[in-house]
Amino acid sequence: MNDSSKPDELVLGVLGGMGPEATADFLSKLVAATPVEFEQQHLRVLVDSNPKVPNRNQALSGQGESAGPVLASMARGLERSGADFLVMACNTAHAFEADIVAAIGVPFVSMIDEACDACERAYPGSRIGVLAAQGCIDAGLYQNAFARRGRGVVLLATDDQLRFMNLLIRVKQGDLSNEVTSTMQRLGELLIAAGADIVVAACTEVPLVLRDGDLSRPLFDPTMNLAQRCVQYARHLEAIPTRARVHN
Amino acid sequence: MNDSSKPDELVLGVLGGMGPEATADFLSKLVAATPVEFEQQHLRVLVDSNPKVPNRNQALSGQGESAGPVLASMARGLERSGADFLVMACNTAHAFEADIVAAIGVPFVSMIDEACDACERAYPGSRIGVLAAQGCIDAGLYQNAFARRGRGVVLLATDDQLRFMNLLIRVKQGDLSNEVTSTMQRLGELLIAAGADIVVAACTEVPLVLRDGDLSRPLFDPTMNLAQRCVQYARHLEAIPTRARVHN
Repeated sequence: MNDSSKPDELVLGVLGGMGPEATADFLSKLVAATPVEFEQQHLRVLVDSNPKVPNRNQALSGQGESAGPVLASMARGLERSGADFLVMACNTAHAFEADIVAAIGVPFVSMIDEACDACERAYPGSRIGVLAAQGCIDAGLYQNAFARRGRGVVLLATDDQLRFMNLLIRVKQGDLSNEVTSTMQRLGELLIAAGADIVVAACTEVPLVLRDGDLSRPLFDPTMNLAQRCVQYARHLEAIPTRARVHN
Repeated sequence: MNDSSKPDELVLGVLGGMGPEATADFLSKLVAATPVEFEQQHLRVLVDSNPKVPNRNQALSGQGESAGPVLASMARGLERSGADFLVMACNTAHAFEADIVAAIGVPFVSMIDEACDACERAYPGSRIGVLAAQGCIDAGLYQNAFARRGRGVVLLATDDQLRFMNLLIRVKQGDLSNEVTSTMQRLGELLIAAGADIVVAACTEVPLVLRDGDLSRPLFDPTMNLAQRCVQYARHLEAIPTRARVHN
């Protein structure tokens, strides 16, 4: 290895596959977020893209098996393979963060905490709209994370949340059509009409069909933010935060 | 695990990061190539995206260290982590295929052999133009693979090959602009003018900027083809071919 390989850089481990297209999107955003002059300066990333993880929304509604044991096993595998810190390219699966953290000796960087911190920095005092899967809402992931920072969030009404879930299924089936985008846009605008100053794309499928600029207010992308944070941590430009562990 | 997790499906291991955007592209094409009704039917994929692999073009021109040992170590790691068969999302790195195969006990599926087989099936008797990196050409990877099938290939002239290499560097730096696409298009058309009936995008960076339909003749994408073949092999719809090992 020569200097360019930066052996002191941290190796990133990614729990992925939930869904697999969102993992590809995360990897692509990680490439875009990494300033390089030549290829060897990009980060080394170990990925376990495992779509077989039990359905998180079903598990969190009490209708399916927990995703925790599978995620813990994936995390252990990534650590064993040489990952120095782990992230997960799925918001809802963070409901099982405690299982993951208990299984590993390396740091786990929460996509949700990073998103909330970044929103606080970029949009202080704003009202936050959250487009999230039902399981993510049931587990209170964004509501609690923003509440710990003294902020409330705006969610979709029950009927619209159902529409959102049906839309997610279409995105997960590969439908990235303009029709899906415009429906997603309408749902985002409902949050804005309900008082949101910014909208958080709090499910990794959302940024596959909706981009910042598609709404009348800013759209915050936790996937892109996580990618940017990973570069800072891997290159030791910032220390990985030690957070008080939240029990799920 | 329930029925939907298909435990008899093979786990795919991917040697990637050469470059990292091409690996994300492969993963995205794998998702697109997998017929599913719900997320859990997608394949499990373990990825070592390692951009620190020594520059293949320099190694193959005798000006840099071999990529073989690093690739062999990555392959061993993927096998140890549970991959049932391996592929590599980089054409040129197949010059080190022998190092990889010697290091593992699971099958390695060659992107290049799969591409040549598919070209034979889809375009029998056609003259094949090859847009490949210098190292890939120096190692004779596509020339030899097509020669074993009784076919010759059309390559770029030296000056144009240099233009192609400079273009690859821009793609690897993240420049996916229309200007890069149109220059790539012109290079593809030069192969067609020299007699090619189809053009093989024989470097994983090419399909990042050029699609089938962008040229006056078909563009064959080995990345997409490999993704499609992986689905067949992982689901036991076809047996992984046992090939006579070619010594590099």
